[in-house]
Amino acid sequence: MLHHELPDAIDLSHHLSKVARARVISPLKELQKYLGRSDIISLAGGLPHPDLFPVDELSANVYSQDAFPTEIPPTKPSLVSWITRLFSGRDQNKWDKLKVPRYPKQSGDINLATLLQYGLSTGSPQLQEFIKEFTSRVYKPAYGNWSILVHAGNTDGWMKAVMTLCDPGDVILTCEWTYPSAVATAHPLGIKPIPVPIDGEGMRSDALFEILSTWDEVERGAKRPRVMYTVPVGQNPTGATMHAQRKKEIYKNCVQFDVIIVEDDPYYFLQEGPYVPRKDRPVYAKANMNNEGFLTSLVPSYLSLDYQGRVVRLDTFSKTIAPGCRLGWFTCNPLFAERFERQGETSTQAPCGFGQAVVASLLMNWKFDGYVRWLQGLRAQYRERRNFCLDCFGDFFELEARSTASTAIYDGYIKTKPIQPSNKWTEEFVHREKRFPVFSFVPPTSGMFVWLQINFRDHSSFGRLGHKNLERRLMKEFAEAGVLIGPGFFFDPNMLDDANDEGPGHFRLSFSNEDFAVLRKAIGIMATVLEAFFYGGDRL
Amino acid sequence: MLHHELPDAIDLSHHLSKVARARVISPLKELQKYLGRSDIISLAGGLPHPDLFPVDELSANVYSQDAFPTEIPPTKPSLVSWITRLFSGRDQNKWDKLKVPRYPKQSGDINLATLLQYGLSTGSPQLQEFIKEFTSRVYKPAYGNWSILVHAGNTDGWMKAVMTLCDPGDVILTCEWTYPSAVATAHPLGIKPIPVPIDGEGMRSDALFEILSTWDEVERGAKRPRVMYTVPVGQNPTGATMHAQRKKEIYKNCVQFDVIIVEDDPYYFLQEGPYVPRKDRPVYAKANMNNEGFLTSLVPSYLSLDYQGRVVRLDTFSKTIAPGCRLGWFTCNPLFAERFERQGETSTQAPCGFGQAVVASLLMNWKFDGYVRWLQGLRAQYRERRNFCLDCFGDFFELEARSTASTAIYDGYIKTKPIQPSNKWTEEFVHREKRFPVFSFVPPTSGMFVWLQINFRDHSSFGRLGHKNLERRLMKEFAEAGVLIGPGFFFDPNMLDDANDEGPGHFRLSFSNEDFAVLRKAIGIMATVLEAFFYGGDRL
Repeated sequence: MLHHELPDAIDLSHHLSKVARARVISPLKELQKYLGRSDIISLAGGLPHPDLFPVDELSANVYSQDAFPTEIPPTKPSLVSWITRLFSGRDQNKWDKLKVPRYPKQSGDINLATLLQYGLSTGSPQLQEFIKEFTSRVYKPAYGNWSILVHAGNTDGWMKAVMTLCDPGDVILTCEWTYPSAVATAHPLGIKPIPVPIDGEGMRSDALFEILSTWDEVERGAKRPRVMYTVPVGQNPTGATMHAQRKKEIYKNCVQFDVIIVEDDPYYFLQEGPYVPRKDRPVYAKANMNNEGFLTSLVPSYLSLDYQGRVVRLDTFSKTIAPGCRLGWFTCNPLFAERFERQGETSTQAPCGFGQAVVASLLMNWKFDGYVRWLQGLRAQYRERRNFCLDCFGDFFELEARSTASTAIYDGYIKTKPIQPSNKWTEEFVHREKRFPVFSFVPPTSGMFVWLQINFRDHSSFGRLGHKNLERRLMKEFAEAGVLIGPGFFFDPNMLDDANDEGPGHFRLSFSNEDFAVLRKAIGIMATVLEAFFYGGDRL
Repeated sequence: MLHHELPDAIDLSHHLSKVARARVISPLKELQKYLGRSDIISLAGGLPHPDLFPVDELSANVYSQDAFPTEIPPTKPSLVSWITRLFSGRDQNKWDKLKVPRYPKQSGDINLATLLQYGLSTGSPQLQEFIKEFTSRVYKPAYGNWSILVHAGNTDGWMKAVMTLCDPGDVILTCEWTYPSAVATAHPLGIKPIPVPIDGEGMRSDALFEILSTWDEVERGAKRPRVMYTVPVGQNPTGATMHAQRKKEIYKNCVQFDVIIVEDDPYYFLQEGPYVPRKDRPVYAKANMNNEGFLTSLVPSYLSLDYQGRVVRLDTFSKTIAPGCRLGWFTCNPLFAERFERQGETSTQAPCGFGQAVVASLLMNWKFDGYVRWLQGLRAQYRERRNFCLDCFGDFFELEARSTASTAIYDGYIKTKPIQPSNKWTEEFVHREKRFPVFSFVPPTSGMFVWLQINFRDHSSFGRLGHKNLERRLMKEFAEAGVLIGPGFFFDPNMLDDANDEGPGHFRLSFSNEDFAVLRKAIGIMATVLEAFFYGGDRL
């Protein structure tokens, strides 16, 4: 085992919150640990008899691991072909039937008598075993005694991390734009965000160093941050993905300033790769990638750099199986894992047994290789969606690419239109007093989101209304035209505390959920709304 | 509707904790409320496409509502007959098959596309509707604008109640003996229990009045308690059940002193009724009770007395369907419900979709009347278990009943034995220096537990070792003989803070889980251990 060659986690117990320190082992649960012994009769727990559970057998029709192809061949750029090809690779015959009986046929079988019973908050042993193998082989933690522990999804995991690591009055490091629920979890507990500037790869390591090295406790009114919240892949909301080098720089800063990194990574397997505009995409299908090639193609997790045990990684099945699983896991040092387990005992207990039954039997059916194969298929589906979405922007706007040192940025202009509607382009365009990009974006290489920066500075009412007012008005105009998009202020970490007008304005658009034709329709509506908003005269 | 005739809840907003007051509406969730509108295209949420969920259909074989009889006819008192009759009423043909498809066939159908998606933390509309009807018809709240809200089981519900109602430094009222996880939830948050003396019906209203009316903030070092934690039916651990009159007295105290009652009531439908020793039980089967008769036979919930909205009732499917559901609900005033919902958004989110799918389709299949019928069958099964367990005590010990004003108490003596083993009783008994009850109990009329008070005062080492040491040693002797039982100190609300030696000692024994033959064997082992413990000489 590689583990034995790696160092153990260093002592990070000084990071535990007062609440976490005050937790004791639930005495009834302690007793429950004896329950597995075959020579003991237990009259200790208040457990119903499993014969009285009304569910005798649970079964599920599920996709096979290879229900979706790993690469989708390119097609001509017609909408019809997109729609007809939608999920074209899915073979309707590729089904498996899972069955979970009330009682196991042989020892180790997944069964309802156990999963629907009160259980340890560590969850089903079969699921634990799978997760342990998966974490070891995919994320390759750089220390020896890492632990895994199930939770009820990353929102639950983050809440447990906050309560275990932070005291009221503490501050946490976040990206300049961040997932609002993460802030909403910490805020009522008296814990405030410190936004760190970002670029196309997410959090900037130089900006982080600046904040940590110049921290003035008196001026800031809080101790130097000890905890960082980060979504390093397909960041929410910006879609940015951080590569190994940047992660190394940030990890080094965190070692120097003793910061715990909470890596919330739901989009890790949706690494779609660089966007190539439709006209430049190769017309041949790529060769199928094998599992090893797929895993090697993914940016490394912070875990793979973590030789000290200061990363709390949050994984979830929400994007890889379904959000309704409410099931995920921590990977972290054993001290934190034990405190999370204690917290679980007095809140969520074990994750739902029905969910565990389906997920565990699905994973045991697929096995490690099958699940990785499934993730490949999923990545290809999201790549197709990302491509389609950005292609639609190309169709409805004039997109111009420019590059910074590391990333391409696309500027979107309102399309020039022929004066006379015509089937072919003419040289006679609508006259515009001023041509300027109405938005710009970095094409996401992972995840579900496009983060549009809106160029309100060129709006005729900018001087009077400013960024935030224009953002709110544009949100309303989109909604009235029938399209709901998340406005940038939702993702401002300090939204809850102040209402400054610092720009620029943004919208987060998700390409993950709507059907392709609807997505295309929505982007068309956006083009109409944006044209009227910027060129329709001062109606605001 | 009766609701309209009832008053609304009074303003109880002064009970909200600082944390609860600081919660804001999660802005993304706010947007999500528009998602139901058919005329809106949403690109706002980070939702996977439901075609990508690997589960296409979930199905379950479930018992019919009448799989268990409502009354089980009495039998001769032989073990064999008990075992062969075990679940004798269950008709193996009484099955239903539930199916939950990916997409609904018609509007309102339970479906995986919705339940496995991100959803509002209020849970599935079908489940909400059922719960609302059930709460209204079964518990009959005495005010008009009560709300229901799903949670992930009563442990989760209680944790949310503590965080919503209590600040660090607060104290909460509990029973003198209480569910240890409830204390373990509050304790790390700096919230300590104030134990209230009990009798055979649970919390004493006179003792509660005494504590509240004489509360000295300075002497106690805390403000007068504002929150009570109570398990009023089949109390954990004592098994005590509180009737309407006592509840009225306690509710009146709570109105007078402005206390919020958190009614944790998992055993409500396991109201087995008074215990009649086997020899005195009627030999004829009772007539089947109809649903209305069953509901009328149950003690009222605090909700039925709650004209102010100061009761937070916690219901769970853990004992009526299965603990692994991790699903239950609050019934409370709308102000508290809204705060619980906000808390759910940043922790558990919605309960697991697989669990909701099974439970909601089971309940929609059974409907209100079917579920109540199922609960009747369940009550009969637990009554049988309770009877069997107490009968075993009668077989292995000499039980003598005595009565206090309201409740029967049984004293258990070590059985006298003939000097010569014989098939029939003789007049020649083993000589005992001293005959005394080694334990006593109030026969539970509800729930899963027998609470044995152990008479350590008559133990020869009592002077030297005291209650707590003897209790721990007896726990060890039981365990070494192969029987695990919960020792009384587990249920001491102040266990986490001190280690006083106040007696008497206790054990909580559960009759809910083990097979009948095993339960009988365990009580036989207890008799052997107790005899050696009390009469085996000073071996400790």
